[in-house]
Amino acid sequence: MNVGVIGAGTIGAGLVRRLVTTTFVSEVTWVNRTLEKKVEPEIIDLQQGLAFSPSCRRVIGRPADSRGAEALRRADIVVLTAGRGVRPGGTRGDLLVENARVVEGYVRLLADYPGVLVVVTNPVDMMARTAARARGVPRQRTIGLGTIVETARLRASLASRVSPVRAAREVWAYAVGTHDDLFVPVPIDHLGPGGTEQGISLQIMIESARTEVIEAARRVKASGGDGTLFPIIEGIVSVIDAVVHDTRTILTVSVHDPATDDDLFYSVPCRIGRDGAGERIVPDMPSVHDGLDRCRERLRSDIETLRAQAVP
Amino acid sequence: MNVGVIGAGTIGAGLVRRLVTTTFVSEVTWVNRTLEKKVEPEIIDLQQGLAFSPSCRRVIGRPADSRGAEALRRADIVVLTAGRGVRPGGTRGDLLVENARVVEGYVRLLADYPGVLVVVTNPVDMMARTAARARGVPRQRTIGLGTIVETARLRASLASRVSPVRAAREVWAYAVGTHDDLFVPVPIDHLGPGGTEQGISLQIMIESARTEVIEAARRVKASGGDGTLFPIIEGIVSVIDAVVHDTRTILTVSVHDPATDDDLFYSVPCRIGRDGAGERIVPDMPSVHDGLDRCRERLRSDIETLRAQAVP
Amino acid sequence: MNVGVIGAGTIGAGLVRRLVTTTFVSEVTWVNRTLEKKVEPEIIDLQQGLAFSPSCRRVIGRPADSRGAEALRRADIVVLTAGRGVRPGGTRGDLLVENARVVEGYVRLLADYPGVLVVVTNPVDMMARTAARARGVPRQRTIGLGTIVETARLRASLASRVSPVRAAREVWAYAVGTHDDLFVPVPIDHLGPGGTEQGISLQIMIESARTEVIEAARRVKASGGDGTLFPIIEGIVSVIDAVVHDTRTILTVSVHDPATDDDLFYSVPCRIGRDGAGERIVPDMPSVHDGLDRCRERLRSDIETLRAQAVP
Amino acid sequence: MNVGVIGAGTIGAGLVRRLVTTTFVSEVTWVNRTLEKKVEPEIIDLQQGLAFSPSCRRVIGRPADSRGAEALRRADIVVLTAGRGVRPGGTRGDLLVENARVVEGYVRLLADYPGVLVVVTNPVDMMARTAARARGVPRQRTIGLGTIVETARLRASLASRVSPVRAAREVWAYAVGTHDDLFVPVPIDHLGPGGTEQGISLQIMIESARTEVIEAARRVKASGGDGTLFPIIEGIVSVIDAVVHDTRTILTVSVHDPATDDDLFYSVPCRIGRDGAGERIVPDMPSVHDGLDRCRERLRSDIETLRAQAVP
Repeated sequence: MNVGVIGAGTIGAGLVRRLVTTTFVSEVTWVNRTLEKKVEPEIIDLQQGLAFSPSCRRVIGRPADSRGAEALRRADIVVLTAGRGVRPGGTRGDLLVENARVVEGYVRLLADYPGVLVVVTNPVDMMARTAARARGVPRQRTIGLGTIVETARLRASLASRVSPVRAAREVWAYAVGTHDDLFVPVPIDHLGPGGTEQGISLQIMIESARTEVIEAARRVKASGGDGTLFPIIEGIVSVIDAVVHDTRTILTVSVHDPATDDDLFYSVPCRIGRDGAGERIVPDMPSVHDGLDRCRERLRSDIETLRAQAVP
Repeated sequence: MNVGVIGAGTIGAGLVRRLVTTTFVSEVTWVNRTLEKKVEPEIIDLQQGLAFSPSCRRVIGRPADSRGAEALRRADIVVLTAGRGVRPGGTRGDLLVENARVVEGYVRLLADYPGVLVVVTNPVDMMARTAARARGVPRQRTIGLGTIVETARLRASLASRVSPVRAAREVWAYAVGTHDDLFVPVPIDHLGPGGTEQGISLQIMIESARTEVIEAARRVKASGGDGTLFPIIEGIVSVIDAVVHDTRTILTVSVHDPATDDDLFYSVPCRIGRDGAGERIVPDMPSVHDGLDRCRERLRSDIETLRAQAVP
Repeated sequence: MNVGVIGAGTIGAGLVRRLVTTTFVSEVTWVNRTLEKKVEPEIIDLQQGLAFSPSCRRVIGRPADSRGAEALRRADIVVLTAGRGVRPGGTRGDLLVENARVVEGYVRLLADYPGVLVVVTNPVDMMARTAARARGVPRQRTIGLGTIVETARLRASLASRVSPVRAAREVWAYAVGTHDDLFVPVPIDHLGPGGTEQGISLQIMIESARTEVIEAARRVKASGGDGTLFPIIEGIVSVIDAVVHDTRTILTVSVHDPATDDDLFYSVPCRIGRDGAGERIVPDMPSVHDGLDRCRERLRSDIETLRAQAVP
Repeated sequence: MNVGVIGAGTIGAGLVRRLVTTTFVSEVTWVNRTLEKKVEPEIIDLQQGLAFSPSCRRVIGRPADSRGAEALRRADIVVLTAGRGVRPGGTRGDLLVENARVVEGYVRLLADYPGVLVVVTNPVDMMARTAARARGVPRQRTIGLGTIVETARLRASLASRVSPVRAAREVWAYAVGTHDDLFVPVPIDHLGPGGTEQGISLQIMIESARTEVIEAARRVKASGGDGTLFPIIEGIVSVIDAVVHDTRTILTVSVHDPATDDDLFYSVPCRIGRDGAGERIVPDMPSVHDGLDRCRERLRSDIETLRAQAVP
């Protein structure tokens, strides 16, 4: 499989490096504004180790012009990571207008690319919407990474709270909504119908895990590291795997809500396959309905901000 | 499987990150002199994504004291990456005395650890020897990463030279000897008995690939990147896989030459399994014999250097 | 990893064939009373395709005598599949006395083998108990396959009943108790706190899935096939993976209940790792307590039957 | 990925069972003349274990009529295993006319299916040719399994003859030509330029391995087993993996020789990817040229036989 990656920041570069170790990626097409600084040195390093790669035969770098566009046309899926990251002390919202223009530029480059586009650029729900509206293909072919990271963090947090502790992959829960503090945790009561374990009620545990998830990114930053990386990259790999193998796995990614007339994108559990987003599975719970209402409100206010700046 | 990793430089940290994506590592025990700067932020990031890990349930960080020693005792294999890296303009040889002391310190920490120790610290052949002599277990339980990287680069280089080009994993060749410019390329004539392809003799192709391999690390550095990383990490993963699953795969790693009375370590194709280094398979070719003679000479001169500094 | 397999019936032979396709088994040691009829032809076929195997380098066959015993001593884990299968129209209980003697014979052959023994022979809970008592190692080193198959069937059944249907691996539930009609389904309410979906209450859905699971083996037989095979073999592979990689995955296998003074073995969710059975995680639900009481009663009656036949 | 399998003999059924354990097959579409006897019981067994499958969400069975045709249209690749097997004492050639009609029937069913068709039906080189000519797509979209099995056997045989013995996957050689006794072994001299090991010349070793490969199928049969199965199934999985992931791996499969005006199909190392057969890499050795001449002669005589029976 040929995977296209746009952008060479920490996430773009980390993703390319990770793709080469999978068992299904045979080629990586890496596009960035400039190649000299990051893309070329990385590719040289990767090429020298391809004898160890299970399936990859080459990694190519292309500039963000017609050469990049032509190379991406052969990709089975494209991941957009370009755009500015959150500045110290800033929020994802600060990036809204600036990154919307970056996203639009790359969508023009992709032109009539018919495959699935995974948007990672923040603020991700709005950027997925911007990309989807600018593309000439059905909305479902554009997917934002959404709350897949919050879902992973929620599971990790719950895993450390149950007794006995278990591996995060043995705890099932979803975070839905927008990729910010408005996300809504949805427990899957694996603790038994009592909903309690050792006297702690599930609801309290979930609330407390929710707070921990909100703190998580801050903890990573505060710890002096490069910011959240691992859950994002593995989340992207999960989406790629679901799309190229058409597994129709249920993932909490940012997808088009067809019930909205303003093309809102936000995360609900959704079946992901070759055509992109399939059935949306919205949990029928009051807390979810209320939480999603707040998310949609936030998104509509962002749309106003974009409009005020003449970004469609 | 519990894999112990000592050191938190680019290679140590990259290795920990990679191990979490394998299908067989259930726990990583990460030991470093300090935990605050690199180990703890990395672990926080990794933990938040463990829901995506196929087999890993936790990554723990421990300081390089009795707590680290105790944690490493439970590891199925330990990889030593600590030590200073090559300085700009310097060579691996410059690190000889300084890193020998680092290695000795960690071997004391490991005490009577009975498992396989993989040494990555440079100059790797000498460091594997130092570690092996300081440990109280059979020499074969210590393996240096050796020329596994040169082998990968040689295969990549040859793959790009044959016609039609092929994937590096479809070209078979070995680099033997020491992990420096004295390594010897051993062709496995996959071009057919004629030994030529499109008029280029195999010997010329190999010589030219040899030069390219020597230039490879320089190209990576010159390109402005972080230095060679991918082939090293994937090489380590190959060794770990061979040891913990007892596959007895043939790898060109730095192993003890029992025919030398001064405990030389250098790379030859060697069967790697649970007990560490098994049968050494030395190609019976004049170019290999001559090349290995030069490697052994170099190593003996390094031994003199160490002795002059009272390092055993 | 060296996996020992005892028995060459449909399950033993199917297991050996499957192990060769994994990424972690490097050697299979296959022991059977006779080698000519099944073991040798199978090994010839497998050997001719080992070039395709990711990690296996050989499959060896040994008779059930001192040669087999010696070979099994090198195995990292042993799976016991020998014994008579259920006769048409018969039940697993009919095999109790006969297979207990088979199991005892093989445990004598294994002598002081210290590793984990996975018992697949039916009736599996009783056979795990018989094996564990005859071995000279802690009870936790013996694991019966238990209701791992009922758990798989329960998940498959529920997956087809929810709306929209999902993949069985995206539905979480456990079957606990004995490997017969007394097993107890434990829902993990993935349908949301309401416990209903499309008007069907979870309890009704679970009851109906329970019936379907009981019918499942019958359906397989009635369909004219070879009987249940795939869920059993994949269940065994899951247990082997958890043990050799020490993943401590939670599986519903038949393990020793230390609270009983007559060494009962039956399935509860249990953490499986290198030492065999770890923490048992018994769901604190009335339906589970009642169901397990009935299972223990059945097992005690089987113990009486064995005693009456002078089987310990 | 959706893999279509036609036929429910030992190979068809074994293939379906194996596909469910891969990490990339999400759906299997199984077509056979009758479903009751084999397909349905197998599917019931497989479905009950799908909770263990890494990526498969369903296996569906369809009859060999318009329903089968419609289901196969959604497959990413189709494998044709239908047709009569070699009778005891018979040869693959005996099946020529009979199986050509079976193949033609299924090609009509596939109609304008645009994807890659892998032909396993024997005599495989002629059946690949028959299928390719009957299909309305470029010849390269049809691939016969060819000598992939002889290649595996040759590597296994050589692996047991070198000293020290090694794993079959660590020995590189190809068998080219037709899938019968006329195949030609092509050594890749992994023994070093001397071409000898322990006094045995490579040429003698290869000749002797060649004989062993010819005997191999006979040994399997004579041993009382079901005939060759494992190398065939793993060979098919390799081809599927190469096609659906577009790895362009070099495999010795039966492909169209564009230099012949009668559409001959036989095996040479060939790059396999999404479009089917890519570059053919014919070893430029006298023994190969002579051997392939004999193979082409045999195929032309088979074409005469078919013509005499009015099969195109």
